[in-house]
Amino acid sequence: MSRRTESVQDLIARARGGEPRAVARLISQVEDESPSLREVMAGLAPHTGRAQVIGLTGAPGVGKSTSTNALIRAFRARGRTVGVLAVDPSSPFSGGALLGDRVRMGDHALDAGVYIRSMASRGHLGGLAWSTPQAMRVLDAAGYDVVLVETVGVGQSEVEIAGLADTTVVLLAPGMGDGIQAAKAGILEVGDLYVVNKADREGAPRTARELRGMLALADRARDAWTPPILLTTAQAGTGVDEVVEALDAHHAWLHETGELRRRRERRAAAEIEAIAVASLRARWAHLDGHRDLASLAAAVVSGASDPYAAADTLLGTDRG
Amino acid sequence: MSRRTESVQDLIARARGGEPRAVARLISQVEDESPSLREVMAGLAPHTGRAQVIGLTGAPGVGKSTSTNALIRAFRARGRTVGVLAVDPSSPFSGGALLGDRVRMGDHALDAGVYIRSMASRGHLGGLAWSTPQAMRVLDAAGYDVVLVETVGVGQSEVEIAGLADTTVVLLAPGMGDGIQAAKAGILEVGDLYVVNKADREGAPRTARELRGMLALADRARDAWTPPILLTTAQAGTGVDEVVEALDAHHAWLHETGELRRRRERRAAAEIEAIAVASLRARWAHLDGHRDLASLAAAVVSGASDPYAAADTLLGTDRG
Repeated sequence: MSRRTESVQDLIARARGGEPRAVARLISQVEDESPSLREVMAGLAPHTGRAQVIGLTGAPGVGKSTSTNALIRAFRARGRTVGVLAVDPSSPFSGGALLGDRVRMGDHALDAGVYIRSMASRGHLGGLAWSTPQAMRVLDAAGYDVVLVETVGVGQSEVEIAGLADTTVVLLAPGMGDGIQAAKAGILEVGDLYVVNKADREGAPRTARELRGMLALADRARDAWTPPILLTTAQAGTGVDEVVEALDAHHAWLHETGELRRRRERRAAAEIEAIAVASLRARWAHLDGHRDLASLAAAVVSGASDPYAAADTLLGTDRG
Repeated sequence: MSRRTESVQDLIARARGGEPRAVARLISQVEDESPSLREVMAGLAPHTGRAQVIGLTGAPGVGKSTSTNALIRAFRARGRTVGVLAVDPSSPFSGGALLGDRVRMGDHALDAGVYIRSMASRGHLGGLAWSTPQAMRVLDAAGYDVVLVETVGVGQSEVEIAGLADTTVVLLAPGMGDGIQAAKAGILEVGDLYVVNKADREGAPRTARELRGMLALADRARDAWTPPILLTTAQAGTGVDEVVEALDAHHAWLHETGELRRRRERRAAAEIEAIAVASLRARWAHLDGHRDLASLAAAVVSGASDPYAAADTLLGTDRG
């Protein structure tokens, strides 16, 4: 069998057998929207749902890469395999990567139990790439015990990551009070676990205290889980075991309460909807007889139509 | 004719005649998703497209309300009428208003040439309310010369406001360097005009200089407009005339280059799509025979289906 006609089933079998190159090729097919994407996703489906999916987010400078590295080490010390997606948010307009200087996580290069992949985010409005959930699916099906998605908490990405993960870790660092303030709309509601990193620096207890105060004010009525606040010095590995224990405790809680299934069903519903809408958008761009989106938009701008009537035309439900 | 059966055409005529209560009632019909919403939008359509639509955004504390007030005064001094929408971003989860303490803009209460309305944002992921573009349409059709949408630059809202306005003004204040840094992904690409407010404070020239440096690095190849950076002390009215002149210069440029039509068509297309997708979502929630979104999501989580196959089912294009 030549490389070009390498079957999807073969790739999936090799990825599940622990071959990193097969995992990489499957993720590339996702990123490149390969024609075989549907076959890939159908082939992966029966093998998904086993991984513990963790989202790690935080503002630039809080030590996300270092923390990811420390978490990988802690999971590996427990004999668990880890697949990591490091998602770079991009500018919504230029499409270029904002954080080109991502620290390479070379420590684990020789460990077959660790797979790390950087992904550029080209999603709608600069958010997480549409391909992120599908790449997570690849890692899950490939059999990694933990799938960790790391993303910079800029804009809405911390809210989006909460939609993708079973457990969301919000990372902070001392002396970033302004950052907390600015981002509080997002972070206070998405974290299942808060970690104040760089705890050897002045102000760490104060940051934890301020955070605790803000979390106490947040509306969590529907959710019985109280997010713990932990202190780490990821660079030295201090406090990382406690983070892993808290992650496992949260996952156990998710299982017991049925919240795991609810979260995953919400995530799947959002993913299905996004795929359906993308497919419709492609169709809407090329409808016949000036019923395409651009023609309808021109009619709305000229005052000849309104957005509701135009939407009816787009959906083929207009009375005309 | 009783109040309850008040006809939409009558309301529109009265709004266009300058009656604020009729404007308020039309916007309420938009906000409440009144059954007559489609009739309202169809009735407004022929009267839209005349207003100069300005978006004003900035981080908390830069002086947005004061600047809005100062701009209203400057436009009124030129004999132009102004309709304002002050949009509060809300938490995506709690639905509560984040900024309950909005300063009431009472200065213009007796001026029939000014209409001000606060709107809560309950949009997708905490962004601008889906109803914002429709409320803008009401003010435009009612005949206000200027429609000004003010929103707090949190998360992606500064990117979203750029999608709604003809001209986007990004407001900053001295000593908010961290804020610039954190938000730069958004603000450097959306502003048609930058205003450093509180220019009487130490550090204003430095903020302007830093901003100029960052803008110089931004990719603006496809856009010949160079965003000016202006200094104001909105509280004292200093520099506000220059802002109005720059706004008018930008609008003239938009006209001349055809960019105005392109922007408005992009805006209309996004609005049509959003309405079409919302209508489909409502339909997808209630499909028969376990073909509804929740059932499909459960099948994906169990591994019995994958998101692509589920999307096909949702769209009725599956082969099954």
